[in-house]
Amino acid sequence: MKVTLTLFLALFIPIFSYAQADSLFIKRMSDDIMRNGKAYELLYELTKKIGGRLAGSPQQQQAITWGKRNMELLGPDKVFLQACKSPNWKRGGADFAAIVGVQGEARIQPLAALALGNSMGSNGMIEAEVVAVASFDELEKRKSEVKGKIVYYHSVFDETKIQTFRAYGESGAFRRSGASRAAKYGALGIMIHSLSTAPDNAPHTGSMSYEKDLPMIPAVALGPNDAKMLYALAQKGSVKVQMQTYGQFLCDVDDQNVVAEIKGSEFPNEYITLGGHLDSWDVNEGAHDDGAGVVHTLEVLRVMKALNYKPKRTIRFVLFANEENGVRGGNEYANQAKLKNENHIFALESDAGGFTPRSIGITASGAAFKKFQAWSNLLKPYGAEVTLGGGGTDIGPLARVNPSTIIAGLVPDSQRYFDLHHAKTDVFENVNKRELLLGAVNMAAIVYLIDQYGVNP
Amino acid sequence: MKVTLTLFLALFIPIFSYAQADSLFIKRMSDDIMRNGKAYELLYELTKKIGGRLAGSPQQQQAITWGKRNMELLGPDKVFLQACKSPNWKRGGADFAAIVGVQGEARIQPLAALALGNSMGSNGMIEAEVVAVASFDELEKRKSEVKGKIVYYHSVFDETKIQTFRAYGESGAFRRSGASRAAKYGALGIMIHSLSTAPDNAPHTGSMSYEKDLPMIPAVALGPNDAKMLYALAQKGSVKVQMQTYGQFLCDVDDQNVVAEIKGSEFPNEYITLGGHLDSWDVNEGAHDDGAGVVHTLEVLRVMKALNYKPKRTIRFVLFANEENGVRGGNEYANQAKLKNENHIFALESDAGGFTPRSIGITASGAAFKKFQAWSNLLKPYGAEVTLGGGGTDIGPLARVNPSTIIAGLVPDSQRYFDLHHAKTDVFENVNKRELLLGAVNMAAIVYLIDQYGVNP
Repeated sequence: MKVTLTLFLALFIPIFSYAQADSLFIKRMSDDIMRNGKAYELLYELTKKIGGRLAGSPQQQQAITWGKRNMELLGPDKVFLQACKSPNWKRGGADFAAIVGVQGEARIQPLAALALGNSMGSNGMIEAEVVAVASFDELEKRKSEVKGKIVYYHSVFDETKIQTFRAYGESGAFRRSGASRAAKYGALGIMIHSLSTAPDNAPHTGSMSYEKDLPMIPAVALGPNDAKMLYALAQKGSVKVQMQTYGQFLCDVDDQNVVAEIKGSEFPNEYITLGGHLDSWDVNEGAHDDGAGVVHTLEVLRVMKALNYKPKRTIRFVLFANEENGVRGGNEYANQAKLKNENHIFALESDAGGFTPRSIGITASGAAFKKFQAWSNLLKPYGAEVTLGGGGTDIGPLARVNPSTIIAGLVPDSQRYFDLHHAKTDVFENVNKRELLLGAVNMAAIVYLIDQYGVNP
Repeated sequence: MKVTLTLFLALFIPIFSYAQADSLFIKRMSDDIMRNGKAYELLYELTKKIGGRLAGSPQQQQAITWGKRNMELLGPDKVFLQACKSPNWKRGGADFAAIVGVQGEARIQPLAALALGNSMGSNGMIEAEVVAVASFDELEKRKSEVKGKIVYYHSVFDETKIQTFRAYGESGAFRRSGASRAAKYGALGIMIHSLSTAPDNAPHTGSMSYEKDLPMIPAVALGPNDAKMLYALAQKGSVKVQMQTYGQFLCDVDDQNVVAEIKGSEFPNEYITLGGHLDSWDVNEGAHDDGAGVVHTLEVLRVMKALNYKPKRTIRFVLFANEENGVRGGNEYANQAKLKNENHIFALESDAGGFTPRSIGITASGAAFKKFQAWSNLLKPYGAEVTLGGGGTDIGPLARVNPSTIIAGLVPDSQRYFDLHHAKTDVFENVNKRELLLGAVNMAAIVYLIDQYGVNP
């Protein structure tokens, strides 16, 4: 009996202690972040002292300097910049849209509008009747009506989708490719319903692109209330609108990823990356998108240094350049990794806001995922778990150049994200301190676990 | 083989279909709530057109009329009022607190302050030195210093507690009983650090009570920033403060629970109750506390009627009176249930805010809980699960008069609740529409499941 117990203890205590040590270290990180975290104060600086940070703006350059200085203050082994060229899209003026006639009668009604990012200006005011469609199918059926008109896409969110990113993915097609699909049939411009869940009238911008060899017609997103009103009017009869935008591309500009690194003590050639993107749209402070991801990244670095954590593997903390309208930073990070033949085992992005965390979503195959999923119990005290599927725009290229890199994303609660995403309402005041810090806790936990145990099943 | 398969199907299809029917009906409710829900618009009316609704205020009477009318419009089998007498505490004036001396030097510094609910006025301005303590232990050790002084309790939240209700439970002891514990040693008044997680200076009120036969000394909560400043000064040397409050109780007032009922078709004598409380503190709109619970309750009634759901059991939708400073409504509901010998099998309260739902917390013993827990998969698509432990102040009395009543609470994410709980910031603008509606979805789902399957293991 005594021998059996001893044997039992000899076999099981190390395993138990291991798990307990993990749980204790994660709690130490959590306590330190919730008590001493600087993410909220840093976000204040980034949003209020610098502001909107579209590639090509002076603010993006200031943000690089700010990010580098703050990384250096935290004392990683090194901090370096990775140069890239980013597109330089300028909004160029105050976007304008208005209803000017309903059923043949003159009627002036301004519409809250923002030009879509990367869209070209209208070259003066354009005026035309609206062809309002609810889908690309409807556009195809009514293509003969489109020539010389302005197409309005009723790209409302499917409110019944509890995961709002799914509704965004669907309705987002109109923003991304609606202009060229309408230009093909001779449209002069397009308007969309903002990709918004908010019960307000703020228009939401966001990137679009044109197909080659088609006219680059102007494109605006309307405030949700105005968009619904326009759609209702257009279903009853003819509606004439005006629009004017000023978008243009200047020459590409010098841009930079900002990277901090802590060298691994056992497996220095295995890289773990975590990051968010430093740029934002021009119309807001980029607080949730992606100021949150930036300060999450800095916070994980801060807590690891504050607790004197010595990683086994090399950890990279990256503030990516130009996610919003080019992904040049993410591509350059992947190119450099490939050029230097770096073994990137894991990359984690925070680019879904600073809301209360629900999970760490990991894209991994069966056996590896099972290993990660077993860590759910270690995340649960901090409100999260490990779920299947996840990544981020900036780390996607890394997985494309090296398919063995496992990518993951912080999954915050998504109910409020599209209320303010790409709208003027994405400001510091709409970020909650505890929710923000808790995102960093869960990121720190998963990075710690990957560092301790690697990614092999 | 063929026979075996048939047998297999015969055995398992009914079970499968059952679960699928549940999942489909819950999805129908969710779709209808997320698309056509009226909770947000009703909350606007309750908060912006009526406002703060402390028992004894004209607004509480307006809210009763409003609640009854809105229930009637939804067409349940009956709507009735349950009369009770509620306490009638009046703040009576603009609470005042200030530092007037530091280390013997005159220094005037106003402090953001709110009298605690149920506390008595100071009878003019009082001025005294501060004894600042961080715990009741410290108060006991320093009891000889307290006579003629004003005791300040440094009742800060433990920020490391991820479940903020736990920190509230701990720090709340100073608000609830700090006055009498200091009065016992001759204190003239008390001040506490507001029970707040917010990085702002808004003071938070909330209920307190006095022990018998001790002086009913005035009690205020200070804004978090001012409280921390006062505590820091008091640790360095003597600090003199002034305070003036005006609290008083007038005669008890007529109050009412507002109750809607849909009669059960199979087990009409088994009652399921869901509800929130109609009253709020006087200093805000009571949007999260507990406007959210009120409109959740109305929303579940709305969707059940909209989908023409005929419950097996009798479902009661209750807007409770006077939760904040007396629980007279909850007690009356329990008394009536006992008097009428009603068999209340289950009661669910929403009184933790209109934030994104995380779980339905159910207080039940082993076998019953296992049954409920198996429904977690049906809640997961809507962001929740079934967790052990939960209830609410208004339904607690029901379980006390009938211990077989199973009680439960909606558990929303708690990170933001104590930023605004009992402070002027608990207003409509701080409620998110989708988060609010999603709370109703999960409440509707659990009420539906209890109605279909009862509570017996």
